[in-house]
Amino acid sequence: MQRGKFITIEGTEGVGKTTNIEFITDCLSGHGVELLVTREPGGTPLAEEVRQLLLARRDEAVDETAELLLMFAARAQHLNRLILPALEAGKWVLCDRFTDATYAYQGGGRGLDMAKIAQLENLVQGSLRPDLTIVLDIEVQRGLARARQRGRPDRFETETVRFFEQVRATYLSRAAQSPERYRIIDAGQPLKQVQTDLKALTDNLVSNN
Amino acid sequence: MQRGKFITIEGTEGVGKTTNIEFITDCLSGHGVELLVTREPGGTPLAEEVRQLLLARRDEAVDETAELLLMFAARAQHLNRLILPALEAGKWVLCDRFTDATYAYQGGGRGLDMAKIAQLENLVQGSLRPDLTIVLDIEVQRGLARARQRGRPDRFETETVRFFEQVRATYLSRAAQSPERYRIIDAGQPLKQVQTDLKALTDNLVSNN
Repeated sequence: MQRGKFITIEGTEGVGKTTNIEFITDCLSGHGVELLVTREPGGTPLAEEVRQLLLARRDEAVDETAELLLMFAARAQHLNRLILPALEAGKWVLCDRFTDATYAYQGGGRGLDMAKIAQLENLVQGSLRPDLTIVLDIEVQRGLARARQRGRPDRFETETVRFFEQVRATYLSRAAQSPERYRIIDAGQPLKQVQTDLKALTDNLVSNN
Repeated sequence: MQRGKFITIEGTEGVGKTTNIEFITDCLSGHGVELLVTREPGGTPLAEEVRQLLLARRDEAVDETAELLLMFAARAQHLNRLILPALEAGKWVLCDRFTDATYAYQGGGRGLDMAKIAQLENLVQGSLRPDLTIVLDIEVQRGLARARQRGRPDRFETETVRFFEQVRATYLSRAAQSPERYRIIDAGQPLKQVQTDLKALTDNLVSNN
């Protein structure tokens, strides 16, 4: 059996991930692709519990290394118990954020040592990397204005503009370094144009499979 | 200000850690040592939440690497937010289990790669190691018989005798490799004798400080 494709979707706050994940799901399903849609941190009951720990606003200051290890703990559970079995069964997996988000948020945003992240990436994933990473990109201020319409922010959404500028810059820099794996989509365009771009991307992916 | 001493106490199920931690606390307090008594996994609100995730019996199989990362996530929080500030303020810290337990339970018991544990130990702790590790040692079957009187077992306590034999062997082997850091106390002796040994040990520690 042919192994499924592993697609991740990334971006800062307010880029429209939720809407566009639904759209990509419809595109791929239209091609008859059997698809598992999931998210990080989370994706299994234990990993979702870790997500709650990570997103909760709390009085206790969260140590940066603890945060990083919680992210990768959730990822190990998600990868080994859900994503890898699905890929091995021939399903495609579409994941809302993955390790690029760790580089972007913990590395770029919080300034944690990228080498530590790389060390944990190798420890948890071995050589596994997504087949395709879609980066929905928008100016930080525009994205935040959109995100703020959604109600009470979580522990990450309360970060500063400077934090998100660094998150965005990290995504763009990683994409520039490995253009074969990343596709940057301009999420500042009208939604119709964003989705035309996504449709072309997914059509291409299916026809080259 | 002189940095405090970091003492950890280890052992398999039913060795009498709780009783003997109280006893050691009394000994050290009797010498006027200002002491923080804490435990792993746990010790801070977030780390205690991670402990609950780890100990909960659950339908979902817990990936071994996820378990290992959760342990070290709790440890990073505990170390950086509680233990290190206490040591730096001159307090002594007595911790119920620490990284030796990870080597013993996840490495020895579950068979996880010791090199992975060492990698995480260095990532989280840098060069920090306990000043003294007390291993309360007892035959596995005798310890389990004692522990079973305590009621419903957690996710670790339901493991097999073989698992605990490997945990115990790992503690003894680590102690043999670094005799300057470890003291093995025969927890199969009558409690009075165990505590005579512990009293001698703590008296010695204080007088050499």
